Amino acid sequence: MSESKKLHLTAFMRPVSLHTGAWRYPGSYPDANFSLAHIVSFIKKLEDAKFDAFFMADHLAVLNMPVEALRRSHTVTSFEPFTLLSALSVVTEKIGLAATASTTYDEPYHIARRFASLDHLSNGRAAWNIVTTGNPESAKNFGLDEHVEHSERYKRAREFYDVVTGLWDSFADDAFIRDQESGIFMDPEKMHVLNHKGDDLKVKGPLNIARPVQGWPVIVQAGQSEPGRQLAAETAEVVFCSPRDLVAAKALYADIKGRVVAAGRDRNQLKILPAAFIVIGDTVEEAKAKRLHLDSLVHYDSAIASLSVSLGTDASEFDPDGPLPTDLPPTNASHTSRAGVVKLAEDEKLTVRQLAGRLGGYSGLAFVGTPESIADEMGIWLSEEAADGFTVAFPFLPQGLDDVTQRLVPELQRRGIFRQDYEGTTLREHLGLPRPRNQFFP
Amino acid sequence: MSESKKLHLTAFMRPVSLHTGAWRYPGSYPDANFSLAHIVSFIKKLEDAKFDAFFMADHLAVLNMPVEALRRSHTVTSFEPFTLLSALSVVTEKIGLAATASTTYDEPYHIARRFASLDHLSNGRAAWNIVTTGNPESAKNFGLDEHVEHSERYKRAREFYDVVTGLWDSFADDAFIRDQESGIFMDPEKMHVLNHKGDDLKVKGPLNIARPVQGWPVIVQAGQSEPGRQLAAETAEVVFCSPRDLVAAKALYADIKGRVVAAGRDRNQLKILPAAFIVIGDTVEEAKAKRLHLDSLVHYDSAIASLSVSLGTDASEFDPDGPLPTDLPPTNASHTSRAGVVKLAEDEKLTVRQLAGRLGGYSGLAFVGTPESIADEMGIWLSEEAADGFTVAFPFLPQGLDDVTQRLVPELQRRGIFRQDYEGTTLREHLGLPRPRNQFFP
Repeated sequence: MSESKKLHLTAFMRPVSLHTGAWRYPGSYPDANFSLAHIVSFIKKLEDAKFDAFFMADHLAVLNMPVEALRRSHTVTSFEPFTLLSALSVVTEKIGLAATASTTYDEPYHIARRFASLDHLSNGRAAWNIVTTGNPESAKNFGLDEHVEHSERYKRAREFYDVVTGLWDSFADDAFIRDQESGIFMDPEKMHVLNHKGDDLKVKGPLNIARPVQGWPVIVQAGQSEPGRQLAAETAEVVFCSPRDLVAAKALYADIKGRVVAAGRDRNQLKILPAAFIVIGDTVEEAKAKRLHLDSLVHYDSAIASLSVSLGTDASEFDPDGPLPTDLPPTNASHTSRAGVVKLAEDEKLTVRQLAGRLGGYSGLAFVGTPESIADEMGIWLSEEAADGFTVAFPFLPQGLDDVTQRLVPELQRRGIFRQDYEGTTLREHLGLPRPRNQFFP
Repeated sequence: MSESKKLHLTAFMRPVSLHTGAWRYPGSYPDANFSLAHIVSFIKKLEDAKFDAFFMADHLAVLNMPVEALRRSHTVTSFEPFTLLSALSVVTEKIGLAATASTTYDEPYHIARRFASLDHLSNGRAAWNIVTTGNPESAKNFGLDEHVEHSERYKRAREFYDVVTGLWDSFADDAFIRDQESGIFMDPEKMHVLNHKGDDLKVKGPLNIARPVQGWPVIVQAGQSEPGRQLAAETAEVVFCSPRDLVAAKALYADIKGRVVAAGRDRNQLKILPAAFIVIGDTVEEAKAKRLHLDSLVHYDSAIASLSVSLGTDASEFDPDGPLPTDLPPTNASHTSRAGVVKLAEDEKLTVRQLAGRLGGYSGLAFVGTPESIADEMGIWLSEEAADGFTVAFPFLPQGLDDVTQRLVPELQRRGIFRQDYEGTTLREHLGLPRPRNQFFP
């Protein structure tokens, strides 16, 4: 680990908390997902804390869930990413703005144009999280009966990326002259007509907007499947992923960085930022207690259903306030999944109710402790090449976000593993990524 | 004309001036189309002047033109409407925000969602200008070799409107409860699944965003063709049109209002706002001289090509500084078009060069004069039922816009035919339009 190696931090903001009980936590804003005033206050705090970017995940549907879960879900309504991030670009100056956009249910001309526009509006702070949108509910909102098959989606995504980046390069950076005296506005020799004709897409071009400030907005990818990793290795500059623990993270990190090199790229041109759910307390015990309280706010019906799925057996028969029974009936479901749950119950000495709340709330990678203990862990992930930083998920807001920006970030800064201030103005500069050369006007 | 009848004014802002010489006019910003700072200053002035709305036209392509025209065109690059208007929603409080969106090259789920999001971000100021996008260059950016046939586009547009408005009604206004104590976030009984299956579109729903503040964003339509007028009569709340003069405007007004009534609607629920290019001077002569100077900034090659098309004969042979020859050769092209040009040359005593500049610059409806003379004309259009107001096009900016906001608007206010202040907060309130009832939760 070089002396200067630092973490990158982005904030996962849609929904503002992934935890299904977050909106009920004492002091939380129940309408946080859908209140511009609250979201403006969040992004300003994140910018003050020098976060690299504000990251908007997205869905193209109300997700399918049982009616009792729907009744309790704060994820059902939120702003559309491009409209929200464009609004936020005006109230911020430095923080990056990452929007999710689907390659399966949108057109490359629209996508190229909106990201270029957001990049110009924000003076070079846009990022595109490329997703292929697997969920069947989305397909039904776009004229299909079933979702598009996985390999077909990834094949189209790869071509879609080529078209979008080709459209971004429609104009040389110096194409626009705007000389009032001579009347020459632009140089048509510096405009490229793409004329793309591929298996899935046919797009003529040029794009009707000048080249983005960053050349290309930063490319983000989240897939962990085989084609997802390969697409990331070939195209992504940031990978958002969800390894379960340090060991899994190191293996994933090594695999993706290896693929990057095999694809002929510099391994530093792709940053791996696992999602991390962060709960902070004055002591580790207090942080754990906060998390248990948060988990307890998940409705028991939803929680026990999640636990039953993970165990591969009906957990609603168990005593909610007793330990997980040791004599679980045999299952045909995933033994790895069951073993993980059994180990979790033992390690944290959870009752069935607490275990169900964890599974129904948020059971991915979490750092739960004091600012110091979490900074220790993050430093290990950085030095052991498990991560180049984190995609931070907040347990509840505003307090859980304030704990990160006011307590954890200063501790990371004190240790020299997070920036004291922005050194550049664009998201590429924050991330240490080069500005891509124009492929038609090098 | 009732005592209280007032004009509505919207600003036609993409490109910021329709006139192809505007960017060269003394004092103009040559990058005005594509500078957020300039556009922010324009919209703030328009809001101070109490304009109803800021209207973004749009194209889904770099328009096809000869290379010498392209070299001189300020229209080639601009912001994408949704990203720009979302940014502008944050720096304004009252003025409406109208975005153009195509029913031919986009998906109703995306369109419904973006307008709903813009309406929430702006607290009820969004409007959708429905266009069917006829130009063939756009088709080529969306996988097609040729543009979609006119009647097919309008058939899809009608169904698209039904789907979008149906999606906006996905949730009752009181669907979201957000009770932290009980854990009930929303009432699934107040969520409607559209399940639309039509000739051109299949969309399940529901939309993943709460019902817009205005119920539905305001519907704008620009078509003047037979199917365009009919679509407007059935669906539009604002019609943007381009009649040549008062006589033509009265006929169009009567026709569209008649169709509105025939469609079972109140005639006041549709406002007709012709496009008007406004040039203001201290005297009528000075205003005319400004316009001639502006026309002279159109490159002669482009200008003479436009004149040749309108005359149906090659005008490049004529003496540029002499009058239009009286012995024009016979033509197979439109005699109406030629007659209009001949009359224009005679009425305004224009040389060939001046005439060419007019045709190559902007030759639609224009009010050119003093604040008083233009207010006289506008008052006549209002009282004679030729218009409910105007879609104002500025000749050059910032000066041409300042002339309207600082000189014409106060004169209209003095006469009592334009508001002194906004009376409501939403665009529907500015326009005097009712909030639509939710069709599924009346």
